Amino acid sequence: MTSESRAVLVTAGFLDAREDDLRRIAAGRARLHRLEQGLPLAVAELADVAAAFLSIDLMKAGTDMGRNPALSAFAAAVEAAPGLRWIHTCASGTDRALLQDAMRRGVTVTSSTGANAPAVTASAMAGLLALARGVPQWVRDQDARHWRLPAAAALPRDLAGQHAVVVGVGAIGGGIASACRALGMRVTGIRRHSLASTDCDAVATLEELPTLLPDADWLVLACPLNAHTRGLVDAALLERLPAHAGLVNVARGEAVVEADLFAAVRAGHLGGVYADVFAQEPLTQDSAWWTLPRTLVSPHAAGLSGGFARRTQDMFLDNLERWLSGQPLRNVAQPAPPA
Amino acid sequence: MTSESRAVLVTAGFLDAREDDLRRIAAGRARLHRLEQGLPLAVAELADVAAAFLSIDLMKAGTDMGRNPALSAFAAAVEAAPGLRWIHTCASGTDRALLQDAMRRGVTVTSSTGANAPAVTASAMAGLLALARGVPQWVRDQDARHWRLPAAAALPRDLAGQHAVVVGVGAIGGGIASACRALGMRVTGIRRHSLASTDCDAVATLEELPTLLPDADWLVLACPLNAHTRGLVDAALLERLPAHAGLVNVARGEAVVEADLFAAVRAGHLGGVYADVFAQEPLTQDSAWWTLPRTLVSPHAAGLSGGFARRTQDMFLDNLERWLSGQPLRNVAQPAPPA
Repeated sequence: MTSESRAVLVTAGFLDAREDDLRRIAAGRARLHRLEQGLPLAVAELADVAAAFLSIDLMKAGTDMGRNPALSAFAAAVEAAPGLRWIHTCASGTDRALLQDAMRRGVTVTSSTGANAPAVTASAMAGLLALARGVPQWVRDQDARHWRLPAAAALPRDLAGQHAVVVGVGAIGGGIASACRALGMRVTGIRRHSLASTDCDAVATLEELPTLLPDADWLVLACPLNAHTRGLVDAALLERLPAHAGLVNVARGEAVVEADLFAAVRAGHLGGVYADVFAQEPLTQDSAWWTLPRTLVSPHAAGLSGGFARRTQDMFLDNLERWLSGQPLRNVAQPAPPA
Repeated sequence: MTSESRAVLVTAGFLDAREDDLRRIAAGRARLHRLEQGLPLAVAELADVAAAFLSIDLMKAGTDMGRNPALSAFAAAVEAAPGLRWIHTCASGTDRALLQDAMRRGVTVTSSTGANAPAVTASAMAGLLALARGVPQWVRDQDARHWRLPAAAALPRDLAGQHAVVVGVGAIGGGIASACRALGMRVTGIRRHSLASTDCDAVATLEELPTLLPDADWLVLACPLNAHTRGLVDAALLERLPAHAGLVNVARGEAVVEADLFAAVRAGHLGGVYADVFAQEPLTQDSAWWTLPRTLVSPHAAGLSGGFARRTQDMFLDNLERWLSGQPLRNVAQPAPPA
């Protein structure tokens, strides 16, 4: 395949942001194919698309294809491109159907794993500490100009000495574990294959998780979504947590059986929930999440930061250089086993 | 002085909570003098009061004497007791006028320093992270059922790599420094006498503070209130901070010149403020604090936790045993130099 006959599919938004870098790297080796926001590409235009970048601007309107024309146009192009060989995603996870489908067709998928880890870590800790100290009540009382101390029976529990179980000890979970320990908490990390982790006090396997929960004050989800973690937090697992325990989910909405969680929280089980991710995003106006008691939600924003988009772009550009010069790509994802 | 002729002044609330421990320790060595909530003691009753415990129940209605009858009754009793030799306070700080006045009269004052340090540390980090990640906006959007991502220009800055200057590196400031570093931040601690601190990346003196601020992303106040820190954060100091910087105050309201802070924030200087302490507490309905832009307030609640009251009681009871058996007291405060 000559340089003239292969194209890299990029969004107009990304092209405009990094045109000089892109053209320098692609020069003489590939053409750039500009995807206008939400406009489908004609099939003829896709014939030479060999690579594509799922950039952050495609996610702005959420990850629900039916309500995100930009993302669905990208997905349609990716699916229809006969010569597609590589997709890079701005996300850490590669669980989206469009990426999993592509992998099953033999397309290589690379991720931006780590690019948002510090921001997700900070958001997870912001959410955990907001629940632990009562920040949502501070905000609501401030808006009501109401100076109100908690009643003696409702004083926050001492966070120091509490036990957090963190599912997934990658860049994000490891960061959360370190931050929890700096606050005097004890941390057990859950990994698929039990390995040592210097970020945690102890490490256990996913199979051991249920036996750990009765002793957990916090269950923090920072794991990839795969066959092992989909629907992980269900009624049976929630029942094993103490009634005062908190749940933090910065992984994927599908790691939690939402109906089971809603039932548990409404029954007074769980002291607090912080969720950044949901089975359906964006949340609709009538979503039960908005008014779930003792619950803080954020709009899948945990990983956003001023430097995030550029870090994912840099990761793509680094891989693009590697791809065009025949070097091994970084952060190649493994296809998930069939469910 | 015989055991029968000396009394320890304690509140009814504390006496009811720890009567067995108190009577066991005092037995045959001192009488207990019960202060009913808000009721003044007759002068005759104060003749034999030799020690007093400023317990947390006295602070419930705030620290403004004019609006807290319980606290003002305690202060009046302490001032009128001719034989008073020792006061233990549930607070970490000993800056309250009633304690400073007593010290000037030769009364020994001991504090509960450290008892609330883990809770204050957690609250300071909850506030800092709430500002850094936009938690107040999450809460308000949740209440409005509004899924809203920040505009590209308003994305949170990457917290990792930011520089926090922490004034006061005691149990609280040291804990804050450790937590910040676990989140990838760089920390300079400010101590009155520059000393090493394993919690910080660097330590500097209060005199060096102004020169450090142009390079600071966060200014965190975790210092005692004394002649060196009263009015520390004024217009001149605020001007030296970058416009995006955040201020966290879990020390004392009087460490900040509030009028200067309000003017700076309203002029768009400072990216965020989290304050738990105020020059006048409780905040009144018409306080400017409630509606100050980019500001989160909590009702002097940073140190509250389920275990806090008991830890301060244990510290008092330990000192009471020492006092009655003639051993040296723990956490003896030094009187502040005259302003």
